[in-house]
Amino acid sequence: METIKAIMTRRSIRNYTTKQVSKPQVKKLLEAAMNAPSACNQQAWQFIVVSDRDILNAITKIHSYAQMLKTASCAIVVCGDIKAEQCKDYWVQDCSAATQNILLAAHALGLGAVWLGVYPRMERLKDLQKLLGLPKKVMPLSIISIGYPKDKVKSVKRYSAKKVHYEKW
Amino acid sequence: METIKAIMTRRSIRNYTTKQVSKPQVKKLLEAAMNAPSACNQQAWQFIVVSDRDILNAITKIHSYAQMLKTASCAIVVCGDIKAEQCKDYWVQDCSAATQNILLAAHALGLGAVWLGVYPRMERLKDLQKLLGLPKKVMPLSIISIGYPKDKVKSVKRYSAKKVHYEKW
Repeated sequence: METIKAIMTRRSIRNYTTKQVSKPQVKKLLEAAMNAPSACNQQAWQFIVVSDRDILNAITKIHSYAQMLKTASCAIVVCGDIKAEQCKDYWVQDCSAATQNILLAAHALGLGAVWLGVYPRMERLKDLQKLLGLPKKVMPLSIISIGYPKDKVKSVKRYSAKKVHYEKW
Repeated sequence: METIKAIMTRRSIRNYTTKQVSKPQVKKLLEAAMNAPSACNQQAWQFIVVSDRDILNAITKIHSYAQMLKTASCAIVVCGDIKAEQCKDYWVQDCSAATQNILLAAHALGLGAVWLGVYPRMERLKDLQKLLGLPKKVMPLSIISIGYPKDKVKSVKRYSAKKVHYEKW
């Protein structure tokens, strides 16, 4: 799929068929994630791929907006490794760019995905750290729920000229 | 350009030719930005397009890593509008996704761009707010320097299997 088209037609996909996402597809999504830019090129990120049905279900008990994980094929949890940061306090931005790359790559591969926020909801974050056995310095930023889209979802136009300013405010 | 290829070959581009980026190209980049996902679909972002040479030069005095703006065709400053947030404290992630969309769209259009961090460096942020006349609640997250690439830059592979964990840490 052409890049601008992928960017303009990507939507949050929460309903999935029973078809499973393949290992090569997951690898492609992770490659896309790790090719995101990062501050000082620090790449201070870590990824947890969850396909185990019990763990996916357990996440839905921690995260009230994550119910679609019950029918998702898998999830990728994008984490910032604070200890590995060279440019301090940029991990949220780095991991967000990585998350966005995964969403676009998923769409380009014909998959559907949705970004579930974890950080900065600290209770949710700590529960997820505990469930996945993450070290204290490994902070889950987002969970990406992934599967084959059940329905065709129309693209939307969000461009607003009011939000564009030239030279100064 | 195909999406996965764009994601995998995008690099930070800091050297530009004198060729100017067109208005339709800038519009396309802004459309890409505003089609990013955002928490609660809040779209709490604002964009400043800077082409004025004096302002671009003035930014280089505020931001020591922004010297490439002296030869950039233009810059887009991506800002979070804190007052407009419905899901509090997600603006950094939303604006990072918008920034990443601009970088990918620029690359797909044959342009070169680089993400310059502003937030959370608060002195830099306040200086930029002052220069651009931004309201206090409009927080510049990033400056994206844009132009036509002067040199061909090789793509790199950043994938690291060590950063992938299955099911649990």
